[in-house]
Formats: sequence, structure tokens, C-alpha cells
Amino acid sequence: MSDKVIYAAILGAGTVGLGTYKLCEAMSDEIKHKTGATLVIKKVLVRNLSKKREGIPDEILTDKWEDIINDKDISIVVELMGGIHPAKDYVLEALKAGRQVVTANKDLIAEYGEEVGNAANKAGADLQFEAAVAGAIPIIRPLKQSMTGNHITEIMGIVNGTTNYILTKMTESGMDYKEALAKATELGYAEADPTADVEGYDAGRKIAIMASIAFNSRVTFADVYTEGITKISADDIKYAKEFGYVIKLLGVAKNTEDGIEVKVHPMLIPNNHPLANVNDAFNAVFVHGKAMDDAMFMGRGAGQMPTASAVVGDIIDVCRNIVHDSCGRIGCCCYKNLEVKDITDTKSKFFLRLEVADKQGVLANIASVLGNSGVSIAQVVQKSGKDGVAELVIITAEVLEKNFNDAMAVFKGLSAVKNIAGVIRVY
Amino acid sequence: MSDKVIYAAILGAGTVGLGTYKLCEAMSDEIKHKTGATLVIKKVLVRNLSKKREGIPDEILTDKWEDIINDKDISIVVELMGGIHPAKDYVLEALKAGRQVVTANKDLIAEYGEEVGNAANKAGADLQFEAAVAGAIPIIRPLKQSMTGNHITEIMGIVNGTTNYILTKMTESGMDYKEALAKATELGYAEADPTADVEGYDAGRKIAIMASIAFNSRVTFADVYTEGITKISADDIKYAKEFGYVIKLLGVAKNTEDGIEVKVHPMLIPNNHPLANVNDAFNAVFVHGKAMDDAMFMGRGAGQMPTASAVVGDIIDVCRNIVHDSCGRIGCCCYKNLEVKDITDTKSKFFLRLEVADKQGVLANIASVLGNSGVSIAQVVQKSGKDGVAELVIITAEVLEKNFNDAMAVFKGLSAVKNIAGVIRVY
Repeated sequence: MSDKVIYAAILGAGTVGLGTYKLCEAMSDEIKHKTGATLVIKKVLVRNLSKKREGIPDEILTDKWEDIINDKDISIVVELMGGIHPAKDYVLEALKAGRQVVTANKDLIAEYGEEVGNAANKAGADLQFEAAVAGAIPIIRPLKQSMTGNHITEIMGIVNGTTNYILTKMTESGMDYKEALAKATELGYAEADPTADVEGYDAGRKIAIMASIAFNSRVTFADVYTEGITKISADDIKYAKEFGYVIKLLGVAKNTEDGIEVKVHPMLIPNNHPLANVNDAFNAVFVHGKAMDDAMFMGRGAGQMPTASAVVGDIIDVCRNIVHDSCGRIGCCCYKNLEVKDITDTKSKFFLRLEVADKQGVLANIASVLGNSGVSIAQVVQKSGKDGVAELVIITAEVLEKNFNDAMAVFKGLSAVKNIAGVIRVY
Repeated sequence: MSDKVIYAAILGAGTVGLGTYKLCEAMSDEIKHKTGATLVIKKVLVRNLSKKREGIPDEILTDKWEDIINDKDISIVVELMGGIHPAKDYVLEALKAGRQVVTANKDLIAEYGEEVGNAANKAGADLQFEAAVAGAIPIIRPLKQSMTGNHITEIMGIVNGTTNYILTKMTESGMDYKEALAKATELGYAEADPTADVEGYDAGRKIAIMASIAFNSRVTFADVYTEGITKISADDIKYAKEFGYVIKLLGVAKNTEDGIEVKVHPMLIPNNHPLANVNDAFNAVFVHGKAMDDAMFMGRGAGQMPTASAVVGDIIDVCRNIVHDSCGRIGCCCYKNLEVKDITDTKSKFFLRLEVADKQGVLANIASVLGNSGVSIAQVVQKSGKDGVAELVIITAEVLEKNFNDAMAVFKGLSAVKNIAGVIRVY
């Protein structure tokens, strides 16, 4: 075995930074066998030097980026700070200085993937980010390697653990959204400000990254239509169950003949679909490729050690590239320039819950409004009303979203429609 | 873009060989973009030159291995003949001659993995075999790369589509084994001689390969305990269902402190386990790693294009290595020499179905035999008998297999026990 030593620096000693350091230490012997080199974490960048970092020796801590970027020994920069600033600058500087970069930063890759990807390509450097999407689940590398012989037409994923936990709780116990969110906050699954999770922004970043890789065409977070779970009610979940569905927050990306569709929204999926049984904080990504047909990847989407597992997988891959002098062997590969469609130009099936006047002729009226907008009804259930209000639960056939929106606009002006209580897309 | 051309040869133009050729042609442009080189399939080795191969030009067909091994242009040999002879010789010759090898041959890797792996390491060549296990599902590469920062403790997989189809049919329709096998044969899911599938040999080869990679210690097919599904009855499935389980044929490999356990057998798994809903011809592999926790990979385990998808993923990876002069960057890595435990030294829970004399004291008698052998009962149901015979269905606590076998030996000598009707392990 060679006595080559590869030095790395970790930026950030938060949960994932600390987990990554510990895992590199614990797997040190294995890494040597697997890569032919000894990996040494030479420096760890922190904001506050006086804070104790359990398990990391004080002497390798630094609060100066210069100590890292100017250290010629360091070949790998592992960015685990998160956020755009200063992470983006550090990553770009590292690449320009000939360093290899591993990052778990989904914000950075989803928003500035083109800039950092080009910088890596230009430098002939590795830029690896398996941990940026779906934590421990191998999905970036399978998309770039194992499944790359496919024309991939669809990716669909439960890629946010917080919302999956909330929806699972609502489904299992009949809790309403607020109660389930409170439970998630109490258990640490939801942050104090849960906006990025519950509004689908976090999932939107991840689906943008996956779509870019799968379709070889740049998709940024700004391209993603996002709709969160804050309006999902216990009633929606109850009726969905009656129809044989569960509600999940999904990131969906499709590569169609007239452009890319990319969106995050709650969706009714049939009980027997593999994604329907992915519960609690688990993540899963479903991929359809022309040759491979359907595949699904499931695992822990977050957490200290699962995320560190993905980061260390990347670090080991970079070490192998350094040993074989093949850094940059799989670069950014968005060589197509496909259009991203507007959400209103895409087609969906809808679950529609209406509170309507409980009198004769209303159902016919509703059906005719839908029909006039080109919306066909696949299933309908009328619930006995009280106080003169009945509840209609409709599942439509596939329809252009703009046509569906037209019908909703008409409903808003109809006195017979008291309330559009729920609108959720259906798989 | 470079004008580099990489020449490959495919050995075998059967289902997978033909699919691979077609996929390479269809993805030719994509491959150029992704690897920086043009891939050309220069020759295809067939046994019978006069047979028409739809889609493959006659002029690249050859029935002479010499035409390939002596052609210095050819850098990649894609072995899709299957079986040991002459595939093994061709693979070894190709590696010795400095060629890169891609193969889908599970028999070869499971039985001669050490020999061909060493030959590849010695030559500094690629030996890639993603398609040898679970068809289109990326599992070899994730184990070698993405999850390699983990101490992997367990792999459990539904890796044989034929038996999964048969068990799914039996579960869904109450068919007995023979009927379901006939259906599978009729639909082409089972071969004329189904032995390798229904006896668990095929799954055994796949679990041997996965265990070797996950545990970094050579496990061959000969190390695997195999038990097939031929004895599973409609009654077993019915009672399993009553207890909340489904029966699946599983390959199971565990990395324990006192050695590796590796086996293939039918198993009762709880309805809510992710593997329980993997039905029909789908495959799935469940992996537990210390850092990553649980993960599962699901997809098509066989079929022309799904298997070709995995082969072409490997070919593209080899092309990237050729372009970056980094062939052999991930070699065979069985650097440990862990012991494989005998099945009798492993622990399992058992589902046990006994036909016993329908008279007082028999249950006590059975319980005491089990107790004397150290087998604790977790659940028991007694079914009303007819003709003086009652049925006992027992689920045991975890027990050393040799202790369980002792109890079975005692039962065989007991007049009260008319028949040991079913013995199946439980997750």
C-alpha cells in the first residue's frame, strides 16, 4: 500500500461537519484500504474558536479561511457551512486554486450550480454534492453514472423529511396541520421558522438539482413551481383515503417532448405506489428511465450521520480520483438547453373538494362548468350536507392546468359554490 | 469536444447483448457528450453466424474470439454470454491483454470473483459488473462508492424475479406453488428448468457478490446457505397473513462480530416493511449501514432493456476512465478475511406449522420440547382440527438454528406430532 497522504479541510463544525469529521476518523483504516491513501483532516473552519467541538482536536480548528486556502497541502475542501455566503466564495476560490470540492449545500447547487459547475469544469476539478439531495440516499451518483445510459423521463421524490413527518402524522392520527407541525417542532423535525420546508422551497431546490442532472439541462430553483402543505386539511386526507390514496409532498420533474416540467406540490398517490409507504422522516426518489423502467431509492434524507455518510462517500471518491490523477472525470454535464414549461401549460389530474349549496341541480351546474373548461370528471362523491351545505369531492381526468384554473375562476363567481375547500393534484 | 474514439466488442448477441447494442446506438450522442469520446461497437461475438441479429449489422458479427482479442483497437470487452465457459477464459484473456471488461455474468463473479478480480487489479484494468446483481438497480456502484463510508452490517434483498412473481401470485390469489410456477412458466418468467431460481441458487450468487463488496471480504456462492420456495404452501401464506406477514424469498447477509452470515431462504416479513410491497418481477435491496441507517433500492431485476441499462452505465463509466487514463480506479477490494458462519451457528426466528394429535396435553408437550431446546415461543395459534388432527402455528423468539433443529429432531420421534408441515424463518 502506498504511503500517500491526502489532506482535507472541513468548512463548518455544525451537526454535519462534526459527523463528517468523526466518520472520517472512524473509517480511517477502511479509507486507506479503499483508496490507497491516508486521509487526514488537517483543518476545520469554525466561526467561533472558543466554542468546544467535541471530538475535534483544538489545534486543527481555525476561524480563518486564509489558513485553508493558502495551505498548499490541502487538496480537498469539504464545504458544510450551508447558505450562499460565504460558502459560494469559498467554493469558487477553492476550485480556482486547484482544490477538489465536496459540498452538502443544496442552496448553492440549486441556485449557482451553473457557476460553480463551470468553475469546476474549467479547473478540471471534482465538485461532488451527493449529500445535497436526500441525505444518505445515493441519487446524484446513480443519476450521473449507473443510470446514465437511459433517457430519463421522470423523477418524483419525497425529499423533505419535515413535511413527510407532518403528513404521516396527519394520516395516521387524523391530526390537523397545525397540531402535526407543533409535534414536528417539538421533536426537532421542524425548525423554528419552518417556511422553507412547509412551503416546499427545500424540496424545490432538491428537485432542481436532480432535474438538471437527469435531463442534462440546467434547472434552477427559480424554475420550480412550489406549493406547500399548509393548506392540507384533515378532511383532505380523510377523503383521499376513501378514494384509496395518501397525500405526500412531492418534487416532480418530467422531461417531455415540449419541455421540462418541474414542480413541488402535495399529491394524492395510490396506496399501492412504492412512494405511498415512505413514511415519517424517510426520503425516497422514484426514477423512470426509458431502458431501465421504474426504480426507487429510499433512505434517511437528513440527520447527522446519514448526511455525513454521503459526504464521506464523496470524499472517498475524490481521494480515488486524486490517487489516479483523474479529478474532474465526471463534471457538470448540462449540455442541453431545454425549455422549462410554465405550470399552467402542464397537465394534471385534480382532487377537488367543494362546499356547495345543498339543492337540486347544483351537481349538474358544477359538472357543466367543469365540462365547459374542458375538465372531465373521473370520480365524484357527494357528502350529505348540514346547514344547507353539501360537500362534493371530485377527482378529474388529466387536464391542462390553465383549463382547470379557468373552471376555478368561474366557481369563485358562482353563488352555489360556497367554498373551494381543497385542490390537490393526483398521480 | 475531443474526437477520441473508443472501440468496444460485445460477446454474445442474446437478449441482453442485443439490448446493449441497441442502447449504445440509441445513446451514442449522449455518450459522446457525457464521456468526451465516441463509442463504437466494433465487433459482436456470436456462436452462429448464419442467425440473423435484428439491428446488428452483419459485417460486425464474428464467431471467432481471436478477431476480438487480437484487435488492438478494441479497449472494452463486454461479456454478455453468461455461464462459466468460455466466458471466464475470455474475460481473463481480455484483462491480461490490457482490455477493460464489463460483464453481467453473476455466475462468473460469484464463483470466480477472486480470480477475475485479482486479474483486473494486476492489469490495472476495469472490471465492472453492475448488471450481474439486480438488473437495472444500481447497487454494486452505490456499495463501492456512495455508501463506502459506512460500516455496512446488513444486506437483505429480493433479487430473483421469478420466485418473487410466484410468491406474489400465491399471496394475491391463494394459488398453490405448482399452479403459480405453471403461470410463471407460461408467461416466460420461469425457465423450462426453473431449479436455479426456485431453489435459491440464482439469489445465492447475487447475495454472495453483494456481501463480498459490502463487507470487503470474499464470499463465494459455496459459502451461501440456500433454501428455495418449493415447500411453501398456500396454507403457510394464509397463516403468515393472519400474523401480519408476507412471505418473500430473501438473500440475507450480515456482518456480525463473530463472522459473516450469508443465506437465501423464504422469510416472513412484516407487512409494513419496505420489502413487503416489492411485488411481481421487481427486485429490491435493503442495506443497513452504521452511519446511513436504512436504505432500500428497488427496480427491474431482469429483462432486456433494464439489464442493458446497467451494462451501458458500466460501459460509460469505463469510457470516462479511458478518457481520464484512470482505469482500475476502483478495483476488487476484499482486503479482509472474515469467517463465514455455518447456518446452524446463526440465529433466527421461526414460523412453525405442526399437525398434531388433537388431544389434551399436546400443546404442553410441544412447548416443553421447544423449551428444553432453548426455543421460546413468541406467538401461538391452535386451529380446530378434523379427524383427530389439530394444527398449531407457532412463531418463536430468536433462537440458535442448531437448537431449533434439535427440537425438530425430537418432534420427528414424537407420536403426537403427525407432520412438521412448515418451517419458515421470520424477520
